[in-house]
Amino acid sequence: MAPAPGFDEPIPVAVLGATGTVGQRFVALLAGHPWFELAAVAASPRNAGRPYGEAVHWVQTTTLPERAAAMTLVEAAPPIDAPLVFSALGAEIADQIETAFAEAGALVVSNASSHRMDPDVPLVVPEVNADHLGLLAAQPFERGGIVTNPNCSTIGLVLALAPLHRSFGVTRAHVVTLQALSGAGMPGVASLEALDNLIPFIRGEEEKLAAETRKLLGTLQGERVAEAQVVVSPQCNRVAVLDGHTECVSVELERSATREELLAVWEGFRGPPQELDLPSAPARPTRYLADPAAPQPRLHRDLDRGMACAIGRLAPCAALQWKFVCLSHNTLRGAAGGALLLAELAVARGHLRP
Amino acid sequence: MAPAPGFDEPIPVAVLGATGTVGQRFVALLAGHPWFELAAVAASPRNAGRPYGEAVHWVQTTTLPERAAAMTLVEAAPPIDAPLVFSALGAEIADQIETAFAEAGALVVSNASSHRMDPDVPLVVPEVNADHLGLLAAQPFERGGIVTNPNCSTIGLVLALAPLHRSFGVTRAHVVTLQALSGAGMPGVASLEALDNLIPFIRGEEEKLAAETRKLLGTLQGERVAEAQVVVSPQCNRVAVLDGHTECVSVELERSATREELLAVWEGFRGPPQELDLPSAPARPTRYLADPAAPQPRLHRDLDRGMACAIGRLAPCAALQWKFVCLSHNTLRGAAGGALLLAELAVARGHLRP
Amino acid sequence: MAPAPGFDEPIPVAVLGATGTVGQRFVALLAGHPWFELAAVAASPRNAGRPYGEAVHWVQTTTLPERAAAMTLVEAAPPIDAPLVFSALGAEIADQIETAFAEAGALVVSNASSHRMDPDVPLVVPEVNADHLGLLAAQPFERGGIVTNPNCSTIGLVLALAPLHRSFGVTRAHVVTLQALSGAGMPGVASLEALDNLIPFIRGEEEKLAAETRKLLGTLQGERVAEAQVVVSPQCNRVAVLDGHTECVSVELERSATREELLAVWEGFRGPPQELDLPSAPARPTRYLADPAAPQPRLHRDLDRGMACAIGRLAPCAALQWKFVCLSHNTLRGAAGGALLLAELAVARGHLRP
Amino acid sequence: MAPAPGFDEPIPVAVLGATGTVGQRFVALLAGHPWFELAAVAASPRNAGRPYGEAVHWVQTTTLPERAAAMTLVEAAPPIDAPLVFSALGAEIADQIETAFAEAGALVVSNASSHRMDPDVPLVVPEVNADHLGLLAAQPFERGGIVTNPNCSTIGLVLALAPLHRSFGVTRAHVVTLQALSGAGMPGVASLEALDNLIPFIRGEEEKLAAETRKLLGTLQGERVAEAQVVVSPQCNRVAVLDGHTECVSVELERSATREELLAVWEGFRGPPQELDLPSAPARPTRYLADPAAPQPRLHRDLDRGMACAIGRLAPCAALQWKFVCLSHNTLRGAAGGALLLAELAVARGHLRP
Repeated sequence: MAPAPGFDEPIPVAVLGATGTVGQRFVALLAGHPWFELAAVAASPRNAGRPYGEAVHWVQTTTLPERAAAMTLVEAAPPIDAPLVFSALGAEIADQIETAFAEAGALVVSNASSHRMDPDVPLVVPEVNADHLGLLAAQPFERGGIVTNPNCSTIGLVLALAPLHRSFGVTRAHVVTLQALSGAGMPGVASLEALDNLIPFIRGEEEKLAAETRKLLGTLQGERVAEAQVVVSPQCNRVAVLDGHTECVSVELERSATREELLAVWEGFRGPPQELDLPSAPARPTRYLADPAAPQPRLHRDLDRGMACAIGRLAPCAALQWKFVCLSHNTLRGAAGGALLLAELAVARGHLRP
Repeated sequence: MAPAPGFDEPIPVAVLGATGTVGQRFVALLAGHPWFELAAVAASPRNAGRPYGEAVHWVQTTTLPERAAAMTLVEAAPPIDAPLVFSALGAEIADQIETAFAEAGALVVSNASSHRMDPDVPLVVPEVNADHLGLLAAQPFERGGIVTNPNCSTIGLVLALAPLHRSFGVTRAHVVTLQALSGAGMPGVASLEALDNLIPFIRGEEEKLAAETRKLLGTLQGERVAEAQVVVSPQCNRVAVLDGHTECVSVELERSATREELLAVWEGFRGPPQELDLPSAPARPTRYLADPAAPQPRLHRDLDRGMACAIGRLAPCAALQWKFVCLSHNTLRGAAGGALLLAELAVARGHLRP
Repeated sequence: MAPAPGFDEPIPVAVLGATGTVGQRFVALLAGHPWFELAAVAASPRNAGRPYGEAVHWVQTTTLPERAAAMTLVEAAPPIDAPLVFSALGAEIADQIETAFAEAGALVVSNASSHRMDPDVPLVVPEVNADHLGLLAAQPFERGGIVTNPNCSTIGLVLALAPLHRSFGVTRAHVVTLQALSGAGMPGVASLEALDNLIPFIRGEEEKLAAETRKLLGTLQGERVAEAQVVVSPQCNRVAVLDGHTECVSVELERSATREELLAVWEGFRGPPQELDLPSAPARPTRYLADPAAPQPRLHRDLDRGMACAIGRLAPCAALQWKFVCLSHNTLRGAAGGALLLAELAVARGHLRP
Repeated sequence: MAPAPGFDEPIPVAVLGATGTVGQRFVALLAGHPWFELAAVAASPRNAGRPYGEAVHWVQTTTLPERAAAMTLVEAAPPIDAPLVFSALGAEIADQIETAFAEAGALVVSNASSHRMDPDVPLVVPEVNADHLGLLAAQPFERGGIVTNPNCSTIGLVLALAPLHRSFGVTRAHVVTLQALSGAGMPGVASLEALDNLIPFIRGEEEKLAAETRKLLGTLQGERVAEAQVVVSPQCNRVAVLDGHTECVSVELERSATREELLAVWEGFRGPPQELDLPSAPARPTRYLADPAAPQPRLHRDLDRGMACAIGRLAPCAALQWKFVCLSHNTLRGAAGGALLLAELAVARGHLRP
């Protein structure tokens, strides 16, 4: 496994919020990562000093890596000896802690929502708006910086919309999400509310989905992003699925397109992760499945190691113009995997100096 | 329990397809019915002659009524000595059998899809278009007739849309359904496809939902129904819920309405079942729930004995005009209960001569 | 609805811990109770002063009764103006609060585990050991007292074992439970741990099941209970079922019995609740189901309004002597319903003076 | 990837019953197998001639291998040009077809139950009774032969019992299984029976579990197996878990053992697959997990690529002597993976001549 371009050795990384479900995914994914090496796991002061393997309530289906299990948890505060920091902190505490790490010189790749809509913070899906990393130059930190990963329900939507938007201009999008339980973390949704039930409400989700989509599809103009003029109307539901957010999407396009043209732009969609052959990049970020009953969470969330967006059921929409269903893995592409890909992009683009 | 108006005794009824899940619901609901008395249970020739209690694979959570258990199954073909016949037959065989019963003089109240879109067959939600029963006069049968109950996903939608349509005119409706497993009957959806999963496809469902909605909201003009000019765009999903279809609806209205006006028309919505105080009528057919996390299948599907449509989450829709979520019990209001209410309406309106 | 024997009016009752899942069941069941009238709902100091309807996160499938919704929550401490108090408090706080109410003169019927094994506290399943109420005389309270309902997994087991024990003497019992999620309350088991999973561990459950069974099957000797000499070996599991504890039981009997004899003792089992015709009494406390795939939680937990124990699959056991499967509703018979029946018994037996 | 010992090239294999769930697992596992190469997929005459990718209703979470998808299904009858044949046929047809393939010279490794209890057919768990392959010599076939894999619930039990039996002698075993839905194949258990439910009955399962355990733990004596004198009493349940059979086991031992001794024999358990370093062999066939809430299907079924038996919750049993919980993956170790390991053993032991 070759180190990252420009580096002679694996880059030490820290994971903040390492005991949560997204933190656990970071720890699991980093175990075999070619460029990054887990150097520190950080959590709340309450758990600092305990071995990670003892403090964590591990709920991943892969075994807790032994090396990580043996590490001692530290408090999530600088200094931590790692130039690259992944944040899986809750939004209520991420704001200040992430800023502190950036001030201390680290490049923070955050999965928290706190800084996503800050004008000088890049909110990036690597295949879609890699150039937004340019915002880092506008940040007030001497050496460090903050880049953010979108909300788990936004990522799948934007992967599916971006190629349509580039080629035909998306003017309106109606989105009904059927989101997985893991998106709520642990303990998250009570089992008494999840079984034989669904919940048509996820606090703050509809607002994030609309706002983040406009920023992600927006245009970098100097040191700011001009949001895309896309109307997004979401209805968000929690359903009894463990992993994988499904979204029923209807769109109106600026320029009319045929079914074949739509399929072609999804089929051909590639971005910097594919061009740079980043370690976590899916071969094809958007995969259209012809099976009339696809995509399904259990069968398709793991496509391309959980990093692809599966699309299906394209049909004319009588209310807008076209409708389809897309699916992406919310704790892989939609959280830890997406943040890892973003960090790889930032490193490959020279935003982390060796 | 008083008999039906105009009758001195309980009206004998037959259930066709009595061993299926909808047929079982009919049997369970008829056990305590004030107007109707179960006189015959009919099924496929293979099961004819067997005691119902032996042949049925009972999957209701209430006990199989002992009287029904002891009845001998007959073949689903006339003559059966019952002036009123409920059909829970599969669509593939319902067409001819229902016609045969109507020719033999019975009033057939059908839950099957075969005749729903026939020009001379009333497709009725009693609160919405009771006057469509007038089509019965156009039918070629001497004494009998056929009336139909809509598809289980159509009923909830139409109950929610009808008061809006009357007051403000619905021009476009976008509907994403999250439908319960019981809608697929037995054996229906395999458990390996239902757990930790959802299926974004239900064969024929989107077509039925669109077409039936237009007929139900249409206007009786002499001996035909002029369909409503409502654009309906459905996306239908099967989710891991046992009973209760949830629908995420966005609408465009002809005349603008405030939030208060919309809530008021749902609140005030009443129809012939309420005016006639029919035995199966819900007190309020549409119930708006203020809880931001309502409606939920497990909590609200049984409202008003499963005969009400629960509505929640009304909000402006950036893509159309308003959006909301509605829920109705698919095997009660959406099947056996709805058909029973329809039969009660037909009897109360004099379509069954004593 | 006639009042309780010896009373002219409904008896005012309070529910402690009224916002929890068991508390909610009490509130729901009391809504239509012929003898008792909900007079007060009590909860933690944090919620005192709030309307019950606002403070409670109602998760029952029946509607929150309007009268209860409008009541103001009080703190769970005496004085509360009700001679009969139902406790659905958590074990960690129940001990002292229940004692305080008994000292203040109330008859406390508790579903908490705190006092169950106290030598002078009756632990009672009304059909099984109603005479243990005699322990009340040994309690140090001037007027009040404490009686307790067993653990939810104990009740079903003891209902099934008691008739066998009386007729043939149970010497050993091996029990594997498959317990419902509602037994863990709210938030209880996380959905991420419940779906596509089971948990072979419930803290403290195996100890309670063994100890309580011996006390319940024991003999009142003066002012103490001599425990039954029954060896009980439990293994407790949590499974993805909403309500209804299933138990796989194998027993060794002192006196040999035929299959017919075992079926006969279950068939004929009756106790004081049936003799006194108590309002919550099931017609038949133990029901053997001949269907080879019975009992099943979804189909049989509601037998006799959730107050019966359904039994099935009786077969010779090669390891002990006989094996069978029993099922009872854990929040009805196993909690609120069972406590209500116990209170009815105590009232009918004169332990609550008018 | 080196070929099998004694072979210069990958060994061509056929899968009978390739479209079923177990057949699909075979196809998925063979995709990357170092010794075997999928040469033919066979199914019912109805599907013969169709491309596998079209005929199969693929329900695995890994993608259908492209090479397999393009293969043309043949009828499950000789001749098929493959010296090694995996049978995932249903028991009702496996009997004659497997015999026909053995007569035609193929070594048949069967997952079907038809021949398991035949006196001259080895029923083998490779770590437990590899020497039973010696029975092949007693078979009437000139060149071919039949070896069988146990029932999915037997394998986990026997892996857990074998080391105890060797060291301390198991005299009685009481087993309550909580079995996964995938064990019933497709369509298998209806979702309406699986959600919020469990079924305390699996046809034929208890009989298989008892009989197969005695044969597997038996001793090869010349050309027959003397069954072990172990009393096995099973109660089998189907629960809402997708993959992974959990079993609650209580045992009586001939020679008393301490907790440490029991843990040590599981810890040290190894067999021919480990000694021969077979491609599908788990590093440690029995893994004791110290976590009090382990093993759990979702967390531990995939241990050692689904080939290990996870054990936990060892405790004294008041009814017998010791009790514990074990878990194994029913379609990997318990079906296709186990059969693959068995085939590897047979090849490594020279039962397939190059």
